[in-house]
Amino acid sequence: MLGRDDVVSVEKARQLVLDALPSGSLPQVKVRVEESLGMVCAGDVVAAEDLPGFARSTVDGYAVAAADTFGAAETMPAYLNLHGREVFMGERADFDLPKSSACRIPTGGMLPAGADAVVMFEHVQPIDEGMIEVVRPVAPGDNVIQAGEDVHRGETVIRRGRRIRPQDMGACAGIGFAEVTCYKPLTVSIISTGDEIVPAGMSPGMGQVRDINSYVLAGMSAEAGCRPVRRGIFRDDYAVLRGVIEDSMKDSGIIVLSGGTSVGTKDMVAKIISDIGSPGVLFHGVSVKPGKPIIGGVMQGIPVFGLPGHPAAVSVCFELFIGPVIRRLSGVEESPAVPRERMVRARLARNVSSSAGREEHVRALLELRDNVLWAVPVLGKSGLISTLVRADGTFVIPLHASGVEQGETVEVRLF
Amino acid sequence: MLGRDDVVSVEKARQLVLDALPSGSLPQVKVRVEESLGMVCAGDVVAAEDLPGFARSTVDGYAVAAADTFGAAETMPAYLNLHGREVFMGERADFDLPKSSACRIPTGGMLPAGADAVVMFEHVQPIDEGMIEVVRPVAPGDNVIQAGEDVHRGETVIRRGRRIRPQDMGACAGIGFAEVTCYKPLTVSIISTGDEIVPAGMSPGMGQVRDINSYVLAGMSAEAGCRPVRRGIFRDDYAVLRGVIEDSMKDSGIIVLSGGTSVGTKDMVAKIISDIGSPGVLFHGVSVKPGKPIIGGVMQGIPVFGLPGHPAAVSVCFELFIGPVIRRLSGVEESPAVPRERMVRARLARNVSSSAGREEHVRALLELRDNVLWAVPVLGKSGLISTLVRADGTFVIPLHASGVEQGETVEVRLF
Repeated sequence: MLGRDDVVSVEKARQLVLDALPSGSLPQVKVRVEESLGMVCAGDVVAAEDLPGFARSTVDGYAVAAADTFGAAETMPAYLNLHGREVFMGERADFDLPKSSACRIPTGGMLPAGADAVVMFEHVQPIDEGMIEVVRPVAPGDNVIQAGEDVHRGETVIRRGRRIRPQDMGACAGIGFAEVTCYKPLTVSIISTGDEIVPAGMSPGMGQVRDINSYVLAGMSAEAGCRPVRRGIFRDDYAVLRGVIEDSMKDSGIIVLSGGTSVGTKDMVAKIISDIGSPGVLFHGVSVKPGKPIIGGVMQGIPVFGLPGHPAAVSVCFELFIGPVIRRLSGVEESPAVPRERMVRARLARNVSSSAGREEHVRALLELRDNVLWAVPVLGKSGLISTLVRADGTFVIPLHASGVEQGETVEVRLF
Repeated sequence: MLGRDDVVSVEKARQLVLDALPSGSLPQVKVRVEESLGMVCAGDVVAAEDLPGFARSTVDGYAVAAADTFGAAETMPAYLNLHGREVFMGERADFDLPKSSACRIPTGGMLPAGADAVVMFEHVQPIDEGMIEVVRPVAPGDNVIQAGEDVHRGETVIRRGRRIRPQDMGACAGIGFAEVTCYKPLTVSIISTGDEIVPAGMSPGMGQVRDINSYVLAGMSAEAGCRPVRRGIFRDDYAVLRGVIEDSMKDSGIIVLSGGTSVGTKDMVAKIISDIGSPGVLFHGVSVKPGKPIIGGVMQGIPVFGLPGHPAAVSVCFELFIGPVIRRLSGVEESPAVPRERMVRARLARNVSSSAGREEHVRALLELRDNVLWAVPVLGKSGLISTLVRADGTFVIPLHASGVEQGETVEVRLF
């Protein structure tokens, strides 16, 4: 029962680390727009000019003064003089359109002075080389994008904290930003511990297993927009582990240790974190399953997590603790209205029991049967990577619930 | 009204291209596991050995023969001899555990012969250096992962067609696959057309605008797991465009032309596609808004799309037509039970009308008010990139509906 009293809730554990993070400014980097996808914008992108810089047609047709078409109808067309000049794509419309005249204009073409609308080809009948008839009226601004209608000069197009999407790249390019200042992607140092762990490329002897968790962690870190660095596999030895942790601190935004679930190793990792200190270990044990033995702390401003060795626990701990820290240190500002995750509601295919007093994360796979979506719990110990591979996501049994019954609806967070 | 009769439905247009794609095998590439995230597995990954290769403890405790603990209780403990040998992490347990004995074992340690369960430290009281008492019984297999329990030799761990997730990387590493054979990421050639388009780094003159769509397309292609290549901006000229298209065909899985919404350019693009041929243009105009003037075809096995120049149309056309083609040519096999997209249900904040006879994709931003999620339609012409930037996603007004009323629930697909 040793230490059981020190176990904290998921919410409390997360908050302890978030509150201990330094609040200073985050490192920034200039990035070419075409390489900025998924990065976080570090400062408002403000337009220095109008987009477009001139009134443009949105259709192929005839530029006109709208007033010249008022009252036009199939039965009583408006007759307009066909102007001798026409508008060409990409060229300045360097002429004035006289009253009661029209000139040809392509989609995207610049409206000439004197014109304030465009009549589509479909609503025009040519009479002869010098005259057209317009069979439908247009209002001023019809089929036109005004200068600055897309973006006004001085307008903020992309706000600081936005994770850049394809259309945000397009908007930056459109207002002439070939580069965007972004927050520097976090380096996540992943340190594998455990005297039984061998690299994936090696054949394990009896008593040994290959490294799994550093790959899971590297993948999840990359998905979260970070740069994962797998530092290697290290012996459960104070000097060795402290050495690699201190070395990693030089260039890491976050340090994650995986493995070391045995009592001795847990204590050693906790001791190293506290010895480096300021503040050191913040929690040691959380009321969550899988993942209970997680250690969380901050060392001289750098968050550090000691994860249990079970792959399912690694996945859950990343989601609950490391992800929020990454988002805070990435400078991302998310709208509370826009869900970050793919969530689906499904009916539970069988009873799942849980011990009250811990938040349980249950792996599940989804099945469609007769158009009903079912969440089938994936059974098996949290030490099995195959349970994570078979599953499509997880659902949560809350802290004080003792289970969920077959047929009840659960919210599945998809991987 | 020219060509109006040729407009096809979204479903039909998509199927026309998918049906014309070649069905041969897709190019493959060997990838190191740590670089395989998001790639599509090109062949079943089959375990060549058991994982783990030996029975392992899942707790810190004492390895025992379960039968020796049957009936144990606080009031009537089972007394076991403490074996002189203990199990160390990463080492073969090269001794037999005698009857009525127990030996220390760490989490992850190998069970010695003669043991079939592990008693947790918490349920043991040491009596002296040679004896312990066990206060709770264990069943055979308790606190043990059996040899092959995670993955059996010969078992398929990752199926062909799976998009590799972090845990899939972990599983591959765990069974000794340092490399995975994946389908080669598709190269998407993006060709910007339009005499008015200048590069993002240039100052546009009057009548000119900067390239926006090639960035949007590159971003969406990258999100879809492809390698985008922005080929540049080309004049609306038959020989020039045909030249760059034929050049792109040499190394592209898909070719996308953006811009060229004017009648002359559309016709020219269609003519080039048909002239290269086999089969050439498959549809020209789809009953969708925005995006109606899209051209779709296949040239000598390579799909090609001529997109309208409006950014919102580019985004919708990618989603509706290019995405499905990418998925087909990427070899990805998705479970119909697992939604690919982030969808949320929201109440519509104002009436939106639509013309029956076209499927309308409406941009919307999400707002939380008093815990109710609202979808606020983003008004503005589809030619405005800013409408896409302000929006969080889109919802669909179906082909035969004339609109959606305020307060109705819509399904918003998030960007």
